[in-house]
Amino acid sequence: MQTIYFKNKPKIVATGTIAGPKECAGIVGKYVDKALSGDMFGESTYEKAECKMLSYAIAKSIENAGVKEADVDMLVAGDLLNQIISSSFAARDFDCSFLGVYGACSTMVEGMALAATFIDGGYAKNIVAATGSHFSSAERQYRYPLELGNTRPPQAQWTVTGAGAAFISYTGGGKFPSITSATVGRVVDFGIDDVNNMGAAMAPAAADTILRHLRDTHRPADYYDLILTGDLGALGSRIVKDLLWEKGVDIQNNHVDCGEIVYNVLEDEFQGGSGAGCCAVVFNSYIYEQLKQGKIKRALFAATGALLSTVSSGQGESIPCICHAVAIENV
Amino acid sequence: MQTIYFKNKPKIVATGTIAGPKECAGIVGKYVDKALSGDMFGESTYEKAECKMLSYAIAKSIENAGVKEADVDMLVAGDLLNQIISSSFAARDFDCSFLGVYGACSTMVEGMALAATFIDGGYAKNIVAATGSHFSSAERQYRYPLELGNTRPPQAQWTVTGAGAAFISYTGGGKFPSITSATVGRVVDFGIDDVNNMGAAMAPAAADTILRHLRDTHRPADYYDLILTGDLGALGSRIVKDLLWEKGVDIQNNHVDCGEIVYNVLEDEFQGGSGAGCCAVVFNSYIYEQLKQGKIKRALFAATGALLSTVSSGQGESIPCICHAVAIENV
Repeated sequence: MQTIYFKNKPKIVATGTIAGPKECAGIVGKYVDKALSGDMFGESTYEKAECKMLSYAIAKSIENAGVKEADVDMLVAGDLLNQIISSSFAARDFDCSFLGVYGACSTMVEGMALAATFIDGGYAKNIVAATGSHFSSAERQYRYPLELGNTRPPQAQWTVTGAGAAFISYTGGGKFPSITSATVGRVVDFGIDDVNNMGAAMAPAAADTILRHLRDTHRPADYYDLILTGDLGALGSRIVKDLLWEKGVDIQNNHVDCGEIVYNVLEDEFQGGSGAGCCAVVFNSYIYEQLKQGKIKRALFAATGALLSTVSSGQGESIPCICHAVAIENV
Repeated sequence: MQTIYFKNKPKIVATGTIAGPKECAGIVGKYVDKALSGDMFGESTYEKAECKMLSYAIAKSIENAGVKEADVDMLVAGDLLNQIISSSFAARDFDCSFLGVYGACSTMVEGMALAATFIDGGYAKNIVAATGSHFSSAERQYRYPLELGNTRPPQAQWTVTGAGAAFISYTGGGKFPSITSATVGRVVDFGIDDVNNMGAAMAPAAADTILRHLRDTHRPADYYDLILTGDLGALGSRIVKDLLWEKGVDIQNNHVDCGEIVYNVLEDEFQGGSGAGCCAVVFNSYIYEQLKQGKIKRALFAATGALLSTVSSGQGESIPCICHAVAIENV
């Protein structure tokens, strides 16, 4: 049993989001708190821009929650940069406890699950869970310098430039989407070692966690209006649907992948978006709005992460992956 | 208030430790589960050796707890390598939920605090918190290739080759050291940017968390038989004592730093040991034994982490640091 239940139903009372110009040309453009006109955000390096975006999203979620910074007990954050420097440096700006986490692109949900646990158990009242990513800092850390102008293979995805934060609280004094349970994933490795094919590597982890969640909770897949994955992309989404179909679970009608919907379909982004910022931006802007308006009543938010590094790939290792899930319901 | 309390007093029922030959020449040699004769542990790369050590420590803690792998609900782990690959790859070996964390050298305590929270709140029964480090993988990632033979400045520390795991459980069916509270630190940055002087950078974070813990709990410093810091080293230890003295808190008589005691004093290691494995090995072997035998009744274990990366330093940033603390008592 990997699923834990939150009887006090911690609420997502507000969110904060920011995204780059390419991202804002898509569906999230209307919903983010700040749409950037360039990807440097007034900073001198990509890494500093990434950190500033994360800091912005955190501060905005606190502002949108209508509370003061001093009311925040804890910040739970992580990102894709080595030693999660975006998060650690962003945390300098906030005078509260900081828990650094690493779950690659599953970080948003890992943070939400931890926040819900601390709040449900009465250990904290207000926690911000946040993450982000930046296309250019990810490219130069994980792949090639942008200046090389490398071509991208058709199975590749595009790292989202953006950040998202969820303000999770013990009370909202009103109706807010609540985190009712969480399924903390296990590491799944199907032996895929193509670092350009993250969707295929991560899909088995997504299938594993979604399946365990449904079995643990004795719920049919259609209990949820929406089963939202993080950044499997177009190919990975097909794979997760197939893997679950083989196990007798049909998510054809209620599955949406943030990576698939983040970019304007007119752009040729191959498999779609990826990066920790992908589902952080999509969930905390567009999806959160649908939840708040009651258009979505019950969602399972299952974000995957590929737990590789350039060193592990260089040493011939395959790609271990993980998927964490939280159930978010209007109760 | 950054301190949280565990009324159900999660117990550290067992530990697992492993360390390299240089480490085992010191005080931990008698107490570790496995003393390595070389630093490769039969692997072809330093990173794979680091991962294998971590996996060994986790498995050993489960064995020492007298339970089966299937009884473990969750593994909480992190390490110093980019994208915490030692932890993620070690987690492949265990069929349980995995929470990846990053707190640099504070990881051991961050993991213990999270484990205690999950267990105290009734969300899990058995959790292993673990971390490790390897001198050679750290040198090549953070500093220079070993082959360069760079000289080390006098304020430098030596990354510990070793790993430690604590098996934390809701019940022990006996007397075991219990985690009674945790103080999750905030990021503290005193503007130090000398990457060779981690002790000085981290000492203010240690002082901040120790002070907050004592104030939150209304305890005098001598409530604890032992105030154990992670890897401040000789210089950092002097600084933390001075900083606390200035605030009217005297830890002269009960403060010990794992980095100061890990190496044989006859060796010239400048400021002593460092790395996530430093306090993981010292606490889970030597100190845990003293706690179990009742020679130490109450300990405050406060581990610090320097949250920098080579990129942040290269971009002229100072070193943000953090310190997490757990109170461990024989109750």
